[in-house]
Amino acid sequence: MSLPKNAANYKRYWDEERETMTQKQRDKVILERIRHQLNYVYHKIPFYRSHYDRNGFKPEDVKHLEDFTTKVPIIEKKMLLADQRENPPFGSYLGVPIEDVVRINGSAGTTTGIPTYYGISRRDWDRIGEIEAMCQWAAGIRPCDVVQITYPFSLWLGGWGVLAGLDRIGSANFPLGLSESERHLSLMHQLKSTVLWSTPSYAIRLVEVAKEMGFDLRNSPVRMLIVAGEPGGRNPGTRKLIEDSWDACVHDSGSTSEMCPFQTNIECEEHAGTHLYTDEVYTEIVDVRNSNEPVLMGKRGAVVYTHLYRESQPMIRMWAGDESYMVDDPCRCGRTYPRLPDGLMGRIDDMLVIRGANVYPSAIEDVLRKTKGIGVEFRIIVEKKGALDEISVLAEYDPVAFPGLTEPSKKSALDNLAGEASKAMKVSLGVRVPVSIVDTGSLERSTLKAKRVIDKRRLPKTN
Amino acid sequence: MSLPKNAANYKRYWDEERETMTQKQRDKVILERIRHQLNYVYHKIPFYRSHYDRNGFKPEDVKHLEDFTTKVPIIEKKMLLADQRENPPFGSYLGVPIEDVVRINGSAGTTTGIPTYYGISRRDWDRIGEIEAMCQWAAGIRPCDVVQITYPFSLWLGGWGVLAGLDRIGSANFPLGLSESERHLSLMHQLKSTVLWSTPSYAIRLVEVAKEMGFDLRNSPVRMLIVAGEPGGRNPGTRKLIEDSWDACVHDSGSTSEMCPFQTNIECEEHAGTHLYTDEVYTEIVDVRNSNEPVLMGKRGAVVYTHLYRESQPMIRMWAGDESYMVDDPCRCGRTYPRLPDGLMGRIDDMLVIRGANVYPSAIEDVLRKTKGIGVEFRIIVEKKGALDEISVLAEYDPVAFPGLTEPSKKSALDNLAGEASKAMKVSLGVRVPVSIVDTGSLERSTLKAKRVIDKRRLPKTN
Repeated sequence: MSLPKNAANYKRYWDEERETMTQKQRDKVILERIRHQLNYVYHKIPFYRSHYDRNGFKPEDVKHLEDFTTKVPIIEKKMLLADQRENPPFGSYLGVPIEDVVRINGSAGTTTGIPTYYGISRRDWDRIGEIEAMCQWAAGIRPCDVVQITYPFSLWLGGWGVLAGLDRIGSANFPLGLSESERHLSLMHQLKSTVLWSTPSYAIRLVEVAKEMGFDLRNSPVRMLIVAGEPGGRNPGTRKLIEDSWDACVHDSGSTSEMCPFQTNIECEEHAGTHLYTDEVYTEIVDVRNSNEPVLMGKRGAVVYTHLYRESQPMIRMWAGDESYMVDDPCRCGRTYPRLPDGLMGRIDDMLVIRGANVYPSAIEDVLRKTKGIGVEFRIIVEKKGALDEISVLAEYDPVAFPGLTEPSKKSALDNLAGEASKAMKVSLGVRVPVSIVDTGSLERSTLKAKRVIDKRRLPKTN
Repeated sequence: MSLPKNAANYKRYWDEERETMTQKQRDKVILERIRHQLNYVYHKIPFYRSHYDRNGFKPEDVKHLEDFTTKVPIIEKKMLLADQRENPPFGSYLGVPIEDVVRINGSAGTTTGIPTYYGISRRDWDRIGEIEAMCQWAAGIRPCDVVQITYPFSLWLGGWGVLAGLDRIGSANFPLGLSESERHLSLMHQLKSTVLWSTPSYAIRLVEVAKEMGFDLRNSPVRMLIVAGEPGGRNPGTRKLIEDSWDACVHDSGSTSEMCPFQTNIECEEHAGTHLYTDEVYTEIVDVRNSNEPVLMGKRGAVVYTHLYRESQPMIRMWAGDESYMVDDPCRCGRTYPRLPDGLMGRIDDMLVIRGANVYPSAIEDVLRKTKGIGVEFRIIVEKKGALDEISVLAEYDPVAFPGLTEPSKKSALDNLAGEASKAMKVSLGVRVPVSIVDTGSLERSTLKAKRVIDKRRLPKTN
């Protein structure tokens, strides 16, 4: 249930005028803020000045909203990293004196191993709280909720941003953070948490642990899970698994730490995709091969984000590395923001080309989640065979689907399951993917972001 | 250095009128608030109503400040625990509807193993931020500071309360939390942290790790350490070790989680003990054997705290289990609050009676810290020998004091060291305490609260 039973006691929108204005009105606001930000970053932030000069771009080149996509050069994560190495610790794009910084955090360094440091000004941090609250309200969180957060509270910005919003809403916030799964589940029952905040992977991990503990999650006090931090929240198979196991609804949310307030990308109670609060973080879908080429509504492309209000480390046309598509037909919730019907569908870098076909790990996950008998954990192995890239899948089986399994019937049952999963993959993805079934619990579990693709092409050769 | 170089750019006090009023003016405010709180808890909070009725106490019995100490029954932690077991999760003393709760945390359960749950209302949480900020400002934190927090951000309330204050001050707050010591030290250098927040034990642990990494902490950007979470911040030996190793000043702070805003107990830049912000958390020193018997200024006794403003889980005359003494002579900082010259000196429950002498673990620590050649980690072993309790000490040696130590000279050097430590103990504590020296690194390190007393009297007998 997205909304609590007493939702009628509260206002429907956090900021009705803003969230329901017409597209035309909103475009006007957006263009004004874009021009403000371009002027600001060009004149005050060395990183942008030299980037724009190198690319022959001037702020006054943007007169209409269309100019923004077609004329402004993008920035990429690796440029931020390089700039921070040259200008430690916050890069030459901090934008404010260090005295104005009130929060320091960093990225988890998932892709590169090197953290990026975030410095956030007081004005920005206050605004971040307000905006995150507006978006969380859209997901259905209300002051009567007890919200348990499973994100770690440490270097990584994720949990801190979430909490900044929840503190504004005034729900009873329980920031337990990284902790044993058994403790999360037991405190969830004791404190009667109604909302759980986690990655999709961890929501599934808790299902497993609850089973081991003999807890039936369908009787838990949780009515809603907000999942973010990795793609998958709108992946139908993953979603159904979480919803059925918890008897609770799932809301996908979140973009990327650089874009804090990152929950401008959030699913409302209509579950019609994630809304994009484009008058705070302007979001474009562009051609994967040409970042100055917009793509039409409904067509897949790369996601590019822009901060319309941040003064500290503002991101202007940041290439996030995610792929998705956008629609702007009206949502029944009344909010007039465009949506990503399938959320963030996967990282462009993660796309695998297998015998000419584009295959995303998220699509493989979807098929596995829908195959009855497959357990919760799996791995996708990518390797080079001759000149070609090949993939295969290792998947655990679900012990509940195969009670009292012993040899020799075990082998034939699991072989059948492997065959079914492989066949479903062929139907869905158009390529043959060999599947091997392994014992339940044999693959490692994660508490935050799961690492399920094992790319042997990138490993150094041994022997 | 307590204050940053540019301290003159900022106001001297957070709230000058409040912090510098005369004792007479303050007593008036305190009495008014005490009467308000007594009425509130008696009429609105079942826990207090039944406790007071059982003890034949009525709020109107308190007409003068003196009546408070002599007439109001204390509450103890075990009463809170029992009440929470009967009325889960927050006990019958929550005081506000759950809808008004904005933060849920818990105790670490150090002494009992069972956590106490804290539910804090929005009004209280806002006020906590403001009060913690006032106290942190007294310690010398300013908006130009970069504050690195080593407390875990999880169930335990400690770090959250600290951060609530720092967020108000607007320093650049870096809540890294529980993390590898190497990472703390390396990020401290990269981000140029000027203030480190930790337990005294962890401040000492970082000294060791820095040595292993080849960092000279005396060249670190840290100018001040705020230590709390365990006694020892005003223990002269511990303090000198931290100050010398870091070339930075130490500020003791903090009372106990139940009393949040717990930094009402904080050391100002004059280092003349910890100030008690008694117009927020009223603090009494009473007879250890009679909680309705006040003790005179300068005399040792048990610490009893009272929330003058909390509406959610207010603590009225809470027996904290700590021992200390109070003075009220003027402090050069200009604040007119009384002080605990030696901070919280130890837990009453931790006091050991050895051949008739009262010995506190903190006193033993003090002697060890002052003995040249003794390393950073030690254990106090308490056991029963016949009818008597006996203590002995295991202490590591400092490898820097004994370069290139090999047998047979090692044995005699360490025997000498043990003899010296034991002699110093006899002089200081009046009892003979045998000391054994063990290798550096052989005793376990902690990142939060150290457990240095091994009480074998409490262990179940094996064999």
